Amino acid sequence: MGAAGCFFVSLLNYKTEKYVIAENRKIGILFRLYQLAVWVFVVKKGYQEREEALQTSVITKLKGVTLTNSSETGLQLWGAEDYVVPPNGDQVFFVVTNYIETPNQRLGFCAESFKVPSGRCQSDADCIEGETVIAGHGIKTGLCLNSTGTCEIQAWCPVESGQRPTEPLLSEAENFTIYIKNFIRFPKFEFSKSNVLETSNDSYLKSCTYDSQDDVYCPIFRLGDLVSWTGYDFQDMAAKGGSVGILIEWECDLDKDSSQCNPQYSFSRLDMNLNNSVTSGYNFRYARYYKDQNGETFRTLYKVYGIRFDIMINGQGAFACDMILLYMMNTSSFYRERKFEIINFK
Amino acid sequence: MGAAGCFFVSLLNYKTEKYVIAENRKIGILFRLYQLAVWVFVVKKGYQEREEALQTSVITKLKGVTLTNSSETGLQLWGAEDYVVPPNGDQVFFVVTNYIETPNQRLGFCAESFKVPSGRCQSDADCIEGETVIAGHGIKTGLCLNSTGTCEIQAWCPVESGQRPTEPLLSEAENFTIYIKNFIRFPKFEFSKSNVLETSNDSYLKSCTYDSQDDVYCPIFRLGDLVSWTGYDFQDMAAKGGSVGILIEWECDLDKDSSQCNPQYSFSRLDMNLNNSVTSGYNFRYARYYKDQNGETFRTLYKVYGIRFDIMINGQGAFACDMILLYMMNTSSFYRERKFEIINFK
Amino acid sequence: MGAAGCFFVSLLNYKTEKYVIAENRKIGILFRLYQLAVWVFVVKKGYQEREEALQTSVITKLKGVTLTNSSETGLQLWGAEDYVVPPNGDQVFFVVTNYIETPNQRLGFCAESFKVPSGRCQSDADCIEGETVIAGHGIKTGLCLNSTGTCEIQAWCPVESGQRPTEPLLSEAENFTIYIKNFIRFPKFEFSKSNVLETSNDSYLKSCTYDSQDDVYCPIFRLGDLVSWTGYDFQDMAAKGGSVGILIEWECDLDKDSSQCNPQYSFSRLDMNLNNSVTSGYNFRYARYYKDQNGETFRTLYKVYGIRFDIMINGQGAFACDMILLYMMNTSSFYRERKFEIINFK
Repeated sequence: MGAAGCFFVSLLNYKTEKYVIAENRKIGILFRLYQLAVWVFVVKKGYQEREEALQTSVITKLKGVTLTNSSETGLQLWGAEDYVVPPNGDQVFFVVTNYIETPNQRLGFCAESFKVPSGRCQSDADCIEGETVIAGHGIKTGLCLNSTGTCEIQAWCPVESGQRPTEPLLSEAENFTIYIKNFIRFPKFEFSKSNVLETSNDSYLKSCTYDSQDDVYCPIFRLGDLVSWTGYDFQDMAAKGGSVGILIEWECDLDKDSSQCNPQYSFSRLDMNLNNSVTSGYNFRYARYYKDQNGETFRTLYKVYGIRFDIMINGQGAFACDMILLYMMNTSSFYRERKFEIINFK
Repeated sequence: MGAAGCFFVSLLNYKTEKYVIAENRKIGILFRLYQLAVWVFVVKKGYQEREEALQTSVITKLKGVTLTNSSETGLQLWGAEDYVVPPNGDQVFFVVTNYIETPNQRLGFCAESFKVPSGRCQSDADCIEGETVIAGHGIKTGLCLNSTGTCEIQAWCPVESGQRPTEPLLSEAENFTIYIKNFIRFPKFEFSKSNVLETSNDSYLKSCTYDSQDDVYCPIFRLGDLVSWTGYDFQDMAAKGGSVGILIEWECDLDKDSSQCNPQYSFSRLDMNLNNSVTSGYNFRYARYYKDQNGETFRTLYKVYGIRFDIMINGQGAFACDMILLYMMNTSSFYRERKFEIINFK
Repeated sequence: MGAAGCFFVSLLNYKTEKYVIAENRKIGILFRLYQLAVWVFVVKKGYQEREEALQTSVITKLKGVTLTNSSETGLQLWGAEDYVVPPNGDQVFFVVTNYIETPNQRLGFCAESFKVPSGRCQSDADCIEGETVIAGHGIKTGLCLNSTGTCEIQAWCPVESGQRPTEPLLSEAENFTIYIKNFIRFPKFEFSKSNVLETSNDSYLKSCTYDSQDDVYCPIFRLGDLVSWTGYDFQDMAAKGGSVGILIEWECDLDKDSSQCNPQYSFSRLDMNLNNSVTSGYNFRYARYYKDQNGETFRTLYKVYGIRFDIMINGQGAFACDMILLYMMNTSSFYRERKFEIINFK
């Protein structure tokens, strides 16, 4: 019968209903109940077997390189192996768009940053030996340094002191592309599909771009487009960082043909407090460790700002309208009988 | 009408019911059906439009540093960039609380650890060349070493031999803090909210602490508190490792005001087999790679023990009680009629 | 009463139904409604309180080492700390099975790879200075190199040029094992369980293997078995990469004994386009950074192919059939009455 058939039943019911109500008000409650049942069955598609355990797999790959040139650290070339964190093609990933680099830190003794309130001091009494600086960089040695007005600490020295660049250093990230491979599988119905055009044409994926009208099966997106579709400006977001959701929805009526089961994309900013300076932005730190000829450890600390992309998959497969309807009623006779039964009911 | 109104309908139904049952036993089944409908509608809130596709974003940031001093490896300073794995502010992360360090491993030949059963030998015949030691560290060379009673292997040498410290080396992790930024969005209702107080006061988040009574919009937690709220001892858990769940629930009745939609936190230990020595604990290994002046690779292997935190977001927005109720029944007349209809039904 | 009792109600209803239909056709609609209610209650277990907020924790650990020997880069020993990405025992992880290594890259000037279409040139005019090579490795310097027919670029040099080995370099990964610790918790019912045998026998987990018949509580799996259970060949998959889902289902009727609540495993390939050369496979790149005596940075770039394992947990606890049934009907009287009521209904 298919979904069209189910819908017809709904219409039929609706017409009969009108007639019957006019005919006989006494059967009101019964009718309300019937209405409820129809609502559950038709509007909420209670008759369809819903597949809930959607199995899904997402593999992502970013392309693009950019050269950054900061006065402190010189030239740096950023490829996907550097700016995608973690680099392993996951469903959730962070793209570095701005950073502060603190190179050649060594374990030693130096002044705490003045930015850390609990590291400031007026005399040694403010710097109790062995105490950790709250939200700071190290352990107090007991000395208050006049030169900086902060406690001396045992830390990775020098401590981070750079300022976040107001213009994102990786502004070119706007032109990086993401390729999102998504596979879905409804195990109960043995149905599976992918969001990538099934073609043997190798060059297709090297030249196409996603287009919600024309090329929905080319899941390659420019980062700048993704952000602009959420209603925000890429360069603004790139400077302080943020979080973007990419939702792929598969609403598949498996009564219909597989070609009717298509992905629908939507894009939204997930951290929406743009004008709230306290909570907005996204950054974290990581370090690269090195050893010199003497076996001494040193490191470069990066504070990176960027955009996290969360790819969310939503899917529902529905099937088997007919079987249950047939089981519940001997279809043809039911509709004929029903009209008279109700009227004669009392 | 709102939720209060819906509840009133439920009460009204309940009273009517009692009366009717006493009145006329014959309509029992109909009444049971009616009861079911009421139960589905009122108790299960079947009339509300439920938002299922909650969109959510979690950003985490840890603060705190500690100095460890182990006899083998000397001083080490642990900042968030080191003890948070992965460091990128994710919803699920691991905090190192204890570790075994094996520095300066080089690819070469050495004795397998005696701890690995399949690496033990009595003669060369037990050490077939080219065979991998099961659950071991390398490939057998064919020699049985008398000195250790184990096969010689090609491996990163020396193999890990340290013992897990019974007291956690990063016992100070108890005082580290987690800041959890959570944004939620019900796309169907265009409703969004965050768990962080909307303030322009920069210093608020630098000084506040979460308090389930007074300061629910300051999502900053001491690690020690988080663990103690699950009913376990932090130092015990820190020694061998474990897994803690932080659940943030948003049960939002969107018929009410946005200020009524608040986060509720709960905390639980997710790996509960505390007294089962075989399965408890959480650890893994990672290595840092270096090259010497000759371009030869060496590495430091870390076996780290710690606590994994899983932040789980649960949310349901419900709305539109009124519309559907109104559609299903012309409210006022329905309740008046109903009483009589049932009684007169036969 | 328990689940068995609920099922009995269902049978009873079914028999009564047959009889009544034969008896009296006029009550058809009422009966259909009743049938619907029974269907919702019994088949769909609408009467049971369903636990939706399953809390779950997964900890994974891989074991196994293998030696690779490629002509360009010499010997390499792969342990779990290297081939598991990320290494932190997560629910979703990637196992390296094949790779291309490009050692000792330095930031400099060299020819773009001929594999990158937009890097090819016939004259300097094709190589506009400062332009990024689309999907390439660096920034054009303005020169077209005759020797290669590609633009000169500023990049990590030399650029990656190796070919993917047709036989996976880590073919031994077939014998690596995964240990999956899964804990579940139904917070509403205060019920929790693990998929690991509760034993104090330390050696049990060192020697057992998963067996769907005999040893369902030993969750240790050979990678080769996991892949073969999805219907694919491990060595084929290992060469280009792929994605495998491991589903653990806990369907727990909490009316029954805890020993009736057992994990069920199923295995499937999540990226199923095997014969589609464009979309199949799974690879990504990462780099290890080093500094030489002069503080100059160099790196080794790895393009790794492998298998991603997604462990998915599904669980439903159901409870409390009795309470609701009792509330909805005074059981014994209901069934006796019901037969007569229906027949006498008109």
